[in-house]
Amino acid sequence: MTQNIYDDEEFFAGYSRLRRSVEGLDGAPEWPALRALLPNLSGLKVLDLGCGFGWFCRWARQQGAAYVLGIDVSEKMLARARGEADDPAITYRNADMEKLDLPANSFNLVYSSLALHYVGNLNGLMLQVDRSLVRGGRLVFSVEHPIFTAPSDPNWSPNAAGRNIWPVDGYLDEGPRSTNWLAQGVIKQHRTLATYINMLIGLGFSILYIEEWGPTEEQIAAQPNWADEQQRPPFLLVAARRRG
Amino acid sequence: MTQNIYDDEEFFAGYSRLRRSVEGLDGAPEWPALRALLPNLSGLKVLDLGCGFGWFCRWARQQGAAYVLGIDVSEKMLARARGEADDPAITYRNADMEKLDLPANSFNLVYSSLALHYVGNLNGLMLQVDRSLVRGGRLVFSVEHPIFTAPSDPNWSPNAAGRNIWPVDGYLDEGPRSTNWLAQGVIKQHRTLATYINMLIGLGFSILYIEEWGPTEEQIAAQPNWADEQQRPPFLLVAARRRG
Repeated sequence: MTQNIYDDEEFFAGYSRLRRSVEGLDGAPEWPALRALLPNLSGLKVLDLGCGFGWFCRWARQQGAAYVLGIDVSEKMLARARGEADDPAITYRNADMEKLDLPANSFNLVYSSLALHYVGNLNGLMLQVDRSLVRGGRLVFSVEHPIFTAPSDPNWSPNAAGRNIWPVDGYLDEGPRSTNWLAQGVIKQHRTLATYINMLIGLGFSILYIEEWGPTEEQIAAQPNWADEQQRPPFLLVAARRRG
Repeated sequence: MTQNIYDDEEFFAGYSRLRRSVEGLDGAPEWPALRALLPNLSGLKVLDLGCGFGWFCRWARQQGAAYVLGIDVSEKMLARARGEADDPAITYRNADMEKLDLPANSFNLVYSSLALHYVGNLNGLMLQVDRSLVRGGRLVFSVEHPIFTAPSDPNWSPNAAGRNIWPVDGYLDEGPRSTNWLAQGVIKQHRTLATYINMLIGLGFSILYIEEWGPTEEQIAAQPNWADEQQRPPFLLVAARRRG
């Protein structure tokens, strides 16, 4: 079972104060890049894995999605999502992503933002995703980048020249990483980039695009503390198509 | 034009002493993984980009390849390759990989081992590769891994816990890197993993498999000095198929 850290009070309080929680999609710097990987949503049936406060679910409806199912392990987050809008075409469901049983051939798009790196049995979930997509349907997701999740001590430190470096070790050693982000002992799953890609190819997906996201020059000018994020990508974005 | 470091005397002397130069394919620890990405070569027409001493060209013929064209920028390496075997079905050609003009629809397999990270205009070369492959033909190559090529100071250093870390910076800053490997001022091109993959997808290739190669436990037991290479992958291996 995936750790449900989002229902931890300290974590939830901290997460609720993040810019992406307060401002929604436009508060997430990688959102323009992730949005660019999406198809036109008009008339589509959409599944959002790890929907959190439901920002994407509501946005998808504004873009004309016919139906949106948002799934999240956190009851606290879903409670807030349900309180935001009363839209009969959005359904929020509380579920552990490792134990989903999704209906077959039901979605045109499966979307997930920064949630899949919490899932232990990702292959099991991706089997479900493959099954739930219509033929030719699209999967678009972001995760923490493997370079970001790999290190045993994931903190910037100056090198001999005084330049900040990201201390990579354990890259090929896949498995859980315990980090202190918003709370103590947050468990994330480190996977190599190849594992994400080969898992999808093995299920019959075609890879359409991958992005190792870092902030643009304009974003760094507006938020100078993001400059380090240009030195190694914090996020990996992937778009793939189910076999037709 | 790509730097022709292999014809530098100091570099050539050093390169000639490497295990992979003395023992050939079996002296390269990533060879079993790269070989696993190859199709059955029987009857195939094969192009080897950066063929060096011709080890792969000769092996391909042993596997039943109908014809092998080996291309390399280094006359010194080709001279030795030509001296190794007199096989009319192997042609060695001296050429700059940035200025190739390959015949269309002529090869079933394009192979390249640790050469493409020297090429400045890789997109131009890949256009040629795409054109030279038959429909459904395969491209299999290895390059130095982007995590390996990224750093401004590419040397292991101990972290606070005394563990060796690989100091990543500049990952998203693509372009030339000057390193001192066998000789001073060896120029390699740093590209992100996404750039390699998206370039191929953009040309219409399907990605079949990628491998972020590190040594196996057996290899580390036999060569304990390779243990660090498990901490971050030194090589990226890619298999792709031209659109059918």
